[in-house]
Amino acid sequence: MRPLGRGVWQFSLPPRILSQGAVGGRREAAGPLGGELDQTFQDTSLGKVTWEQAEAALQEEALSLALHKARLAPEDLDLVLAGDLLNQCVSSTFGLLSFQIPFLGQYGACSTMAQTLLLGAMAVDSGACERAAAVTSSHFCAAERQFRLPLEYGGQRSPTAQWTATAAGAVVLSREGPVQVERGLAGRIVDLGIRDPANMGAAMAPAAADTLLRFFQATGASPAEYDALFTGDLGAVGSQLLLELLGERGLDLSSLHQDCGLLLYDRDRQDVHSGGSGCGCSAAVLCGRILPRLAAGEYRRVLFCATGALLSPTTQQQGASIPGICHLVQLGRA
Amino acid sequence: MRPLGRGVWQFSLPPRILSQGAVGGRREAAGPLGGELDQTFQDTSLGKVTWEQAEAALQEEALSLALHKARLAPEDLDLVLAGDLLNQCVSSTFGLLSFQIPFLGQYGACSTMAQTLLLGAMAVDSGACERAAAVTSSHFCAAERQFRLPLEYGGQRSPTAQWTATAAGAVVLSREGPVQVERGLAGRIVDLGIRDPANMGAAMAPAAADTLLRFFQATGASPAEYDALFTGDLGAVGSQLLLELLGERGLDLSSLHQDCGLLLYDRDRQDVHSGGSGCGCSAAVLCGRILPRLAAGEYRRVLFCATGALLSPTTQQQGASIPGICHLVQLGRA
Repeated sequence: MRPLGRGVWQFSLPPRILSQGAVGGRREAAGPLGGELDQTFQDTSLGKVTWEQAEAALQEEALSLALHKARLAPEDLDLVLAGDLLNQCVSSTFGLLSFQIPFLGQYGACSTMAQTLLLGAMAVDSGACERAAAVTSSHFCAAERQFRLPLEYGGQRSPTAQWTATAAGAVVLSREGPVQVERGLAGRIVDLGIRDPANMGAAMAPAAADTLLRFFQATGASPAEYDALFTGDLGAVGSQLLLELLGERGLDLSSLHQDCGLLLYDRDRQDVHSGGSGCGCSAAVLCGRILPRLAAGEYRRVLFCATGALLSPTTQQQGASIPGICHLVQLGRA
Repeated sequence: MRPLGRGVWQFSLPPRILSQGAVGGRREAAGPLGGELDQTFQDTSLGKVTWEQAEAALQEEALSLALHKARLAPEDLDLVLAGDLLNQCVSSTFGLLSFQIPFLGQYGACSTMAQTLLLGAMAVDSGACERAAAVTSSHFCAAERQFRLPLEYGGQRSPTAQWTATAAGAVVLSREGPVQVERGLAGRIVDLGIRDPANMGAAMAPAAADTLLRFFQATGASPAEYDALFTGDLGAVGSQLLLELLGERGLDLSSLHQDCGLLLYDRDRQDVHSGGSGCGCSAAVLCGRILPRLAAGEYRRVLFCATGALLSPTTQQQGASIPGICHLVQLGRA
């Protein structure tokens, strides 16, 4: 591995993605990617008695699917990197407890899929592990109660608000597999002073712009080298802001850009306002659509840039701004 | 680097610890390690208007001290790995925001210092970074309100309860420095069904035992190779349980064992019940005592095993058990 800049690196012998699992809830099943998810649950409680347990079960299902596809058992994994939005990342703890895999908990808010992928690839590349997994999830009902209002309150949603996906994704990293992790970039915390928790897209767009500008500067890559650029859940508002911010700096990525928050749902048909969000949103799009298309040769090289809003309900109530972050992974067909 | 077992690895060319910073509050200043911390604050609000901001300032101070000692500027760091106990790890976000260093947020509860050290060392070893920092913190007042009761309630504390340290630690990892990171182990989530949130030591001791048994089995090392073994905040109750659990498996580490939760305070003089806890506890002991003693040659080789209890107030109120985790770092004089 060699550094290309601060927090930007290139894998000399790219680690591979051996398999992945994508799961979703009822709304995700009814969306445009419903048929591309490995498993969906019409009962979004997954038969559990709390939303937290339901979200934990999403992680368990996603990792089980990824392991099953690779014909691996949990003991074949040396490490799992996982995180989620819930306080103290309890979906990851309880969802992955039974696997008994060495575990390093991550917190990157909705950027977690990219973050776990980066560190999992680094762990495999370093020789510390033969195989590692990267897992994340979110659940609409658990997130609403924790970050906003209890569902029973029936609050109105702002047009700029996004819909937390009930979904999870899991990736198995190894030295074999059809997709390779070629480059990585760890994002910086960027805070332009956005204070509206119903407008996460605006809070995260500056971080995505910072990451993309840093990436193209450090690598000297041309946008023409990529078949697509996926941001993780900027939604409609944040996506437009991102393209504007990049345009101001002379970088036009509009023909490449897609947003996981706009792919997971049909905004005309589904009441998700500015689009999807939550760790599970970009995770499900990565594992349900992007990785299978790379494996099939439909894409040769893409950028996956998951974005996160680093707020807590406490800091929000205290009047703090909402810093954002965006981690980037360059993926290619092996 | 080469793997020694599942989630256990040995650095072929050990990354170094270049410098560290340890800060604490009033109670930590009055404890046995008061003179070994780089900076202490009699006003534990650090002049801020919220406890969350005060905790963020502890991280900022700790990293500033570590940078100052190494004569480095924030832009000399390629990556910072940090986490804390607060919901969505906001002390790390807001404490490290101004440094503008590529950031990967971690969640390992009170095991965070070991976890960030492991991944920071891996990042330097892999060649992704020239220099990385590992940072964590906790604050008694922020943690009490979030996990237990508002301070104003004046609740009685159980004799098995531990005192969350108001403290932070920061380490700069590099290819140079007096201390080296020789081996690492990522812990597994261990759950023996403890449900008493006022007895974290009991919840974490089984994880510490699992980690130490795995480590000695994977490495074939003898306890005689080490000058000391530091567990991170098991306290009096958890420390005794750890030695009992290890004894049942034929491993006697009683002559090596010290616990950061028992080192930071004087339990006879200070009202901390079973001992200290919180991410900042083992971080301050590592950065204030262990690393300086390694650098001075007073220790040649030690094991640092920070432990974490992976609960949230929500899962606790829902009646869930408290899983524990323990990550291990083998440190030696370079």
